[in-house]
Amino acid sequence: MKVLIIGANGQIGKHLVKLMQETESIHAKAMIRKEEQAAYFNNLGAETVLVDLEGEIEQIAAAANDVDAIVFTAGSGPKTGKDKTIMVDLDGAVKTIEAAKVAGVQRYIMISSFDTTRTAIQEAPESFAPYVVAKHYADEWLRATNLDHTIIHPGMLTNDEGTGQVTLANTVEVGEVAREDIALVILETLKQDSTIGKEFQVVGGTTPIAEAIQSI
Amino acid sequence: MKVLIIGANGQIGKHLVKLMQETESIHAKAMIRKEEQAAYFNNLGAETVLVDLEGEIEQIAAAANDVDAIVFTAGSGPKTGKDKTIMVDLDGAVKTIEAAKVAGVQRYIMISSFDTTRTAIQEAPESFAPYVVAKHYADEWLRATNLDHTIIHPGMLTNDEGTGQVTLANTVEVGEVAREDIALVILETLKQDSTIGKEFQVVGGTTPIAEAIQSI
Repeated sequence: MKVLIIGANGQIGKHLVKLMQETESIHAKAMIRKEEQAAYFNNLGAETVLVDLEGEIEQIAAAANDVDAIVFTAGSGPKTGKDKTIMVDLDGAVKTIEAAKVAGVQRYIMISSFDTTRTAIQEAPESFAPYVVAKHYADEWLRATNLDHTIIHPGMLTNDEGTGQVTLANTVEVGEVAREDIALVILETLKQDSTIGKEFQVVGGTTPIAEAIQSI
Repeated sequence: MKVLIIGANGQIGKHLVKLMQETESIHAKAMIRKEEQAAYFNNLGAETVLVDLEGEIEQIAAAANDVDAIVFTAGSGPKTGKDKTIMVDLDGAVKTIEAAKVAGVQRYIMISSFDTTRTAIQEAPESFAPYVVAKHYADEWLRATNLDHTIIHPGMLTNDEGTGQVTLANTVEVGEVAREDIALVILETLKQDSTIGKEFQVVGGTTPIAEAIQSI
């Protein structure tokens, strides 16, 4: 299976590509924005493709035309300018969903925010709300498609070493989770087709990831 | 007919409420954000209701529960902070659409931007693109509902006196149009049910507004 990683140069993306390259059955195609980002991926033996998320749907579709799945893990992050929030986290995400359709890629995994519900928008601090709104509409756009999608809602991301264990369900109590564990969750989600059409929140925990995903 | 005006205190909104109060068959209910904005509308004999667009859907629905139609003419404008663009022009608009459903208000008129297509997003200058994106998704949300909607795409708005004449079609060449004429277009759109399910661009021109709207 070949998987296009949108946002490969992000922190989760880098873990994910590395894990994929260590996995026999899965190969990563890293979508990056700048030529100088390629070295990390080439060193791992992963393919790269240069496309800006603020570009045209057709460019993203061209990058996706030889893959079996797309993982969206790009993010302007809650701390960039709000213009990037709407251009990347919302419109960039929607363009990759539309590109999946154009390229005929049926499997799509979205890395969302922990809680993107209407309640979360209304309760968010003023500085964080625009990010939640952007992720909300990207998730809504994906849900309305016929793609085989999974939406992953991670807790507060840390750079701790992964434990390979999580707590994962439709809704869980908020908590921290290592980016490396989220990468493992994505990998396992790709392996288990029972995740299609589902979404779940995930935080650090004590259940081995493969088992946690089987349970949903 | 009673019509809830979202963004009544804006420049188009003020013209619109004034025109409605001069029209026998239509009464305006001005939705405003601050108590001190009420005087202008009370002087016109128009009802007001105090609701912040960044509040809950239920509050907007309560404001809409005795009206026959909703007009959305609020706007952070392209020059406010991008956080307000996403919170007002996108999420605020969507909440009023959802409020229309909750309150059982079937008629909804959206004042959009001149061109909110994917092409317009891709071609917009960087500083303007977030606004186009916000309006794009608000329009898309409305199109996906079962509401009796009309989407009006005005050209470059001016404070010139209205002429009562416009050029109006599915697509027209971009040009200026007086806010006062847009208010007249909204009023006429409410009167002519043939506009339901349609959207059009409108700029200054030489066709009387009632006639222009009949032709679409």
